[in-house]
Amino acid sequence: MDNFILHERLKNDTIEVIDLKLCRVLLMNDSHFPWLILVPMRPGATEVHELSKEDRSILIEEACAASRAISSAFSSDKINIGALGNLVPQLHVHVVGRTRTDRAWPGPVWGSGPAVPYTTAQLEQTLTSLRSALSKEFA
Amino acid sequence: MDNFILHERLKNDTIEVIDLKLCRVLLMNDSHFPWLILVPMRPGATEVHELSKEDRSILIEEACAASRAISSAFSSDKINIGALGNLVPQLHVHVVGRTRTDRAWPGPVWGSGPAVPYTTAQLEQTLTSLRSALSKEFA
Repeated sequence: MDNFILHERLKNDTIEVIDLKLCRVLLMNDSHFPWLILVPMRPGATEVHELSKEDRSILIEEACAASRAISSAFSSDKINIGALGNLVPQLHVHVVGRTRTDRAWPGPVWGSGPAVPYTTAQLEQTLTSLRSALSKEFA
Repeated sequence: MDNFILHERLKNDTIEVIDLKLCRVLLMNDSHFPWLILVPMRPGATEVHELSKEDRSILIEEACAASRAISSAFSSDKINIGALGNLVPQLHVHVVGRTRTDRAWPGPVWGSGPAVPYTTAQLEQTLTSLRSALSKEFA
C-alpha cells in the first residue's frame, strides 16, 4: 500500500502475521493472550469513522475473521474487540481472545501489566496456527 | 424487536437515548465521559461475529454515527470503541468520547473507577445534545 508506514510502537510490540485486503494483521508479542492487532493500510486514519463506508465494512469483516481465527486456534471464552488509540494515533483494532483464567479477567487487557514475550518455539506455533486459521477464513 | 430484553446490568447503569435500525442506544450514567452503549436488538447474540454480515455492516455504521455524534456534541480528542462483554454477556458496543484531561486518560475507561451519575440538569442537557446529533446522522 503506497505511503503506508506502520507506527514505530506497533512495529516494536508485534510480529507481522499476514496482510488482508484492508488490514495488516499483527500479533502482539505478549504470551498472556492471543492478541491480534489489525491496522487498516490507510495513511493518516486515526478513527474508524474516518474510513470510507466500504473500508468500514471490510474492517468489521476482517475483525470478525480474526475473532473466528482466534476462537478456532485457541480455547477462548470471549473475544474482546477494541479501537482505542489513546497512545498510538495510527488507527488500529485490537482483537483479543480472553479466558476466565487469564491474568486480566474480567478486566480489559489494556494496562493489565507488562507483556511477556513469546519464546521462539511458542511464537512459531502461534503464528502457524493463526495464519492457518486466518487463511481458512478467506479461502 | 420481538423477544429482545435488555440485560439487567445495562438497564441499571444507563439511560435510553434512542432506538436505531439495529441497536438500542444507551447513555452510561457516568458524568465523567460522554459514553454511549449500542446494543444490537438480536436476542442471544454475544459476539460481533455471531451477527449476520448485513447486521455487522449496520453495526459499524451505527457505531460510527455514535462516534460522530459524540465528537460533534462534545469536545472529544479521541473516540474509543470497544466490544468486551466479559461481565455482561449480551452483545454491546461501547463508544466513548475521550479527552486528554479525563480521569482515565490515556488508559481505558473500563475499570477506571466508580461512576458519578449525572445530575438531572446535566442529564437533560446531555440527552438533548446526543439525540439531536444522532438524529442529524440519520436525517
